[in-house]
Amino acid sequence: MRILLTNDDGIYARGINTLYEYLKKLGKVYVVAPERERSAAGHGITVHKPLRANAVVLNNDKDLCAWAVSGTPADCVKLALEALLPGPPDLVVSGINWGANVGTDVLYSGTVSAAVEGTIAGLKSMAVSLDVRCSEPNFAAAGEYILELVETYLEMDIPPETLLNVNIPDVPQGEIRGVTATRIAKRRFIDAVEKRKDPRGKSYFWLSGRIDEQELPGTDSYALGENLISISPVQLDLTNYQVIDQIQDHWNIKT
Amino acid sequence: MRILLTNDDGIYARGINTLYEYLKKLGKVYVVAPERERSAAGHGITVHKPLRANAVVLNNDKDLCAWAVSGTPADCVKLALEALLPGPPDLVVSGINWGANVGTDVLYSGTVSAAVEGTIAGLKSMAVSLDVRCSEPNFAAAGEYILELVETYLEMDIPPETLLNVNIPDVPQGEIRGVTATRIAKRRFIDAVEKRKDPRGKSYFWLSGRIDEQELPGTDSYALGENLISISPVQLDLTNYQVIDQIQDHWNIKT
Repeated sequence: MRILLTNDDGIYARGINTLYEYLKKLGKVYVVAPERERSAAGHGITVHKPLRANAVVLNNDKDLCAWAVSGTPADCVKLALEALLPGPPDLVVSGINWGANVGTDVLYSGTVSAAVEGTIAGLKSMAVSLDVRCSEPNFAAAGEYILELVETYLEMDIPPETLLNVNIPDVPQGEIRGVTATRIAKRRFIDAVEKRKDPRGKSYFWLSGRIDEQELPGTDSYALGENLISISPVQLDLTNYQVIDQIQDHWNIKT
Repeated sequence: MRILLTNDDGIYARGINTLYEYLKKLGKVYVVAPERERSAAGHGITVHKPLRANAVVLNNDKDLCAWAVSGTPADCVKLALEALLPGPPDLVVSGINWGANVGTDVLYSGTVSAAVEGTIAGLKSMAVSLDVRCSEPNFAAAGEYILELVETYLEMDIPPETLLNVNIPDVPQGEIRGVTATRIAKRRFIDAVEKRKDPRGKSYFWLSGRIDEQELPGTDSYALGENLISISPVQLDLTNYQVIDQIQDHWNIKT
């Protein structure tokens, strides 16, 4: 089996290196990841400048094929599939991200975007994130869970154009209460911008903000709060089919 | 009425400047747009460095409040809503983009992401793009159509968390055949990466590719081919609800 592994924290991040050690038990793993952190890259791709892909050594592992790419997570997957791998992988995995990717944040997440890119290419794809709660996250425990989840996922008949977004609570192993399928929460940030003055007295801004949210049962963010591993099925099609007729009637037009 | 106008081609692009001239007939228009082109930025936001917003003069119009922002289209909307505008706008408009934003491209589009950001904030939002087919696109004709569409949209009771993605064929005015509500096409690129050698013999890559697509009736891309203005309702919720039970059963877990 051939697996493409990527992330948005950068190729030298602990999450991806730990996950590699687990996934290699399943087959040949190719790591193609950003050369630096690209968090919150969303589904950006690089079209105005060329990309570089440098072969690097990771984990002191001579068998590992790894490339550090000068672009976004989505760029990495495009490049891997079209130029770097010897053939199409059986699976695309993105992560383990440092920090949860739940709720509306999914839209901003480079981790999820890489999995979306795999799905566009027709491949089984999974984004995995660790809901880090202390300064010493346990990526190894998450790696074990992910290995199990991947094995199950490969057996499943998930409809095409759907990827899995997995979030794992970073709690001691005995405290994880199970796995649950979730919907993506609706989240809004408040106080999302902080205004400051530079030493010359000119304004600048930081995006920040805290979440204004009731955690609702059935959502990904609620599941994490319950110490459950959350799996959300994410679809590519953004069309709101219920509204098509309403628009058509309102504009009252022939097609 | 208060309107926030943004884009991803940059604040000095023809599309946004033309659209301003039309939208100002409806009320006070605030332009907050990237200081340079940010096409294919996806839903990226800037969290690792601060943002600047410089007041600029556009269209020689003293009444116009315009800010050039050092970030992505999504950054522009966040900044506008939280720090620059005197209060929440009644409408967010993103465009007119140079080039169509249809099919899977919607995921990569900075134009659409800006409208998504408006929708997250609970505002009526519209992305508008011109399907340019020659070197001298007619943004003015598109501006007239958009003015009409915006007026209709403001009257409509579209469900929250749904924005409109509008694409207009760039053909002589008499040749536009009408308006139609569409679903977002599924598109795949083939030959998506071009490999080249630099003068030192080292490889680099360009993302490119052509579309491998049957244009299907009912889709946004098909409508443009028929010289129809396409309006797709785009939803924020990416959950594939049909698959939740399947996952739950397969992992067989209590919640």
